[in-house]
Amino acid sequence: MTLVARLQAELGAIVSVEAADLAASRTDKSGWTADGAPLAVVNATTVEHVQCALRLASEFRVPVITRGAGTGLAGGACGTDGSLVLSLAGMNRILEIRPQDELAVVEPGVINQHLNDALAEHGLWFAPDPASKAISTVGGNIATNAGGLLCAKYGVTREAVLALTVVLADGTLLHTGHRTVKGVTGYDLTALLTGSEGTLGVIVEATVRVRAVPLGDTVTVAAVFPDVAAAAAASARITAERLRPAVMELIDPVALAIVGRYLGPERSAGLPLGRGAFLLVQTDGEGAAIEAERVAAVMRDERGEVRVSSDQESGDRLLAIRRAMHPALEQHGTVLIEDVSVPRSRMKEMFDVIAEISARTGIAIPVVAHAGDGNLHPNFVIPADPSGAEGAAIVPDNIWAAADEMFRAALMLGGTLTGEHGVGVLKRRWLRDELGDTSFDLQRRLKAVFDPLGILNPGTMFAAS
Amino acid sequence: MTLVARLQAELGAIVSVEAADLAASRTDKSGWTADGAPLAVVNATTVEHVQCALRLASEFRVPVITRGAGTGLAGGACGTDGSLVLSLAGMNRILEIRPQDELAVVEPGVINQHLNDALAEHGLWFAPDPASKAISTVGGNIATNAGGLLCAKYGVTREAVLALTVVLADGTLLHTGHRTVKGVTGYDLTALLTGSEGTLGVIVEATVRVRAVPLGDTVTVAAVFPDVAAAAAASARITAERLRPAVMELIDPVALAIVGRYLGPERSAGLPLGRGAFLLVQTDGEGAAIEAERVAAVMRDERGEVRVSSDQESGDRLLAIRRAMHPALEQHGTVLIEDVSVPRSRMKEMFDVIAEISARTGIAIPVVAHAGDGNLHPNFVIPADPSGAEGAAIVPDNIWAAADEMFRAALMLGGTLTGEHGVGVLKRRWLRDELGDTSFDLQRRLKAVFDPLGILNPGTMFAAS
Repeated sequence: MTLVARLQAELGAIVSVEAADLAASRTDKSGWTADGAPLAVVNATTVEHVQCALRLASEFRVPVITRGAGTGLAGGACGTDGSLVLSLAGMNRILEIRPQDELAVVEPGVINQHLNDALAEHGLWFAPDPASKAISTVGGNIATNAGGLLCAKYGVTREAVLALTVVLADGTLLHTGHRTVKGVTGYDLTALLTGSEGTLGVIVEATVRVRAVPLGDTVTVAAVFPDVAAAAAASARITAERLRPAVMELIDPVALAIVGRYLGPERSAGLPLGRGAFLLVQTDGEGAAIEAERVAAVMRDERGEVRVSSDQESGDRLLAIRRAMHPALEQHGTVLIEDVSVPRSRMKEMFDVIAEISARTGIAIPVVAHAGDGNLHPNFVIPADPSGAEGAAIVPDNIWAAADEMFRAALMLGGTLTGEHGVGVLKRRWLRDELGDTSFDLQRRLKAVFDPLGILNPGTMFAAS
Repeated sequence: MTLVARLQAELGAIVSVEAADLAASRTDKSGWTADGAPLAVVNATTVEHVQCALRLASEFRVPVITRGAGTGLAGGACGTDGSLVLSLAGMNRILEIRPQDELAVVEPGVINQHLNDALAEHGLWFAPDPASKAISTVGGNIATNAGGLLCAKYGVTREAVLALTVVLADGTLLHTGHRTVKGVTGYDLTALLTGSEGTLGVIVEATVRVRAVPLGDTVTVAAVFPDVAAAAAASARITAERLRPAVMELIDPVALAIVGRYLGPERSAGLPLGRGAFLLVQTDGEGAAIEAERVAAVMRDERGEVRVSSDQESGDRLLAIRRAMHPALEQHGTVLIEDVSVPRSRMKEMFDVIAEISARTGIAIPVVAHAGDGNLHPNFVIPADPSGAEGAAIVPDNIWAAADEMFRAALMLGGTLTGEHGVGVLKRRWLRDELGDTSFDLQRRLKAVFDPLGILNPGTMFAAS
């Protein structure tokens, strides 16, 4: 019997070999599509389904690509040729919410926003907030150690994961971590698994730390500056003055012009979006208004044209400018979102490098940055194929060459080639450059402890052997 | 040539075989002392010293016990018979402070408080604050993933470590992590090494995340309640009302009576310390006063006799009650500080279990708890040997039996046997009980990847093989 026949015999209708299901599993939101076709998609709804699939995959030595909502940006969860795709999208129950312990227990397929909706009734929230939160799963957030807009103040996903239940490559169950904030018994496998992109095990349950919604109002302050240098200077001064915004987002002039055209004057919240650079700050907690006042003073001092909003509605209008970035770009083609991160003090230099690469190559590179943590998203827009052919856009070589220059510059500035999207298949070729030989080789040996047969997401992070 | 002769030939005067140095290296602040005698103590002051020591130790297959200030509470850094002790106390330079990037780069032997003194000039601080901060090293804080009073709001040490330089067992250098808040390139080795208690590698440099000192004042609120149940109820309500204290410490009646006698009425800050349970809260940030007012209202509502202080001096007097706990106990003998942690909602039950064990066994067990994160420190006081013999007190079997009951109760309540002190040698025998076989065996295999010869701190966490 083949693997697929065995799976169908043991798992029944949750095993799909429909061409449409196989095709859908080959791509993600990066625009990348894997070659060939996977053998089948297992739509798991229980832990036992996952254990069975892994046991059989081990027996047949077939690669397993674990997949949630398919919203990844690095091609790390795409069904490759001859692989078994394990979809956890159907494991989407919230198992527990414990307000007094500030934790929730969830299955991996729960959508981030759905968890937050359920928590809101208790005055709680789950802090990790990737831009994809409306469509991405908590399991995927954990597998990529997702970032977002709030990390400088509220931490990355790793800080929000207390414990995991994981199915190992051979189908056995591993429990890691604690239901407590503190706990130092043994190695921190919870942290090791967070961000491991499906290469060490399959997360089937997560105990996440949730927080009380801060008391007091959220205040939004936004400004348009003459150029990136002025916006970056304002952002650096906000940090230097010990203000602690929840959100601090910077949009460069190339991107702002595109967003300005997309929104039009009636949705610009009274700001001149057609020129200059944009900086948006949100403060929260009981001191939000005082902090926002100081933020606005710094912005004015750095020649910003400032708008302050303390009501939800006008705050939402300002935030909508930032949120319009991606849809505005998508009007012009497929968007490849890059993801370098540098120490905050080098952010201005990184903007300069990107502008120089853009000028020299003639490739437009609109940039948005999480300025609070030095995480820049330079975007490449790949126009739709004029022949109208279907299928994902192929990233042209000249764009990869420009991205390569950017990655190397980020490393030179003490940064990293991916702040929050992950390595996946798209950044694999640069991994050794950043890690160095000692770490790279050590990491491969660690993977082999978890996955001696090399069946877990081969090709992601490390080249398939 | 012997290992010691080779070390002396290569490293000279930093290699000590003085009896006093060897003896001092055998113990820590837990009161535990290793049997026998180590071969030598290497007082490293450079990375190259550490590399040389590990290269030779690998060649001779001699165990290496890495040690900082010797303030551990689990016997995890004590020179065992026939081992080489590697002291990093002399690697105590602060290499960089980067205010704009909110990071500092330090050698491992820097005392936590010294780093904080240097940071204070820049309006910055290093958040991990174990009670030992005046005497413990940053390297030791990282090796144990130290906790402290501020973790519920400001996180454990892991959250404050961005990057590490580590000497591996064979003497090679490993660099992990980033100088950025975000970074997801490869596995999170920084987190894996944090809390690994010297069993995976030797930390020779750390890039730590520092924070801006919060703006606004710190307000201290303290109260004495009729009993633990009332104090625990007040603490739970403070959490439920979404208040976010920086500090929330609870002292049980047994401990409070001892502290009250130690301080006397003139240092009691006007509180009746002789009876009842004590709860101390500090709020910080721009909203500190508003939050403190609400905290005080909750405390009064739960029958607390409340004192509020917003000036530094009277605040210090209230905090001094908590800080007097350990010196007060030490007047009565050697203190074994236990360290269980439970989900906050189970804290009251854990107090009850401890009281029941105490009543049944006749062993007094004064308890102080970090109530914000459910971390309890039940203390055992071992009277000095009436014969006046020198040397560390031996923990009597009946105390270990009581501790064993406590650990099992903590696990039953969904907690852990060590919240912040580490496993060391003293809790090794319970490690498999908490981790389970799958995790325990996996962790041993991970150790073998880093340390194939098993020379790094054998006996800590896992029994020496």
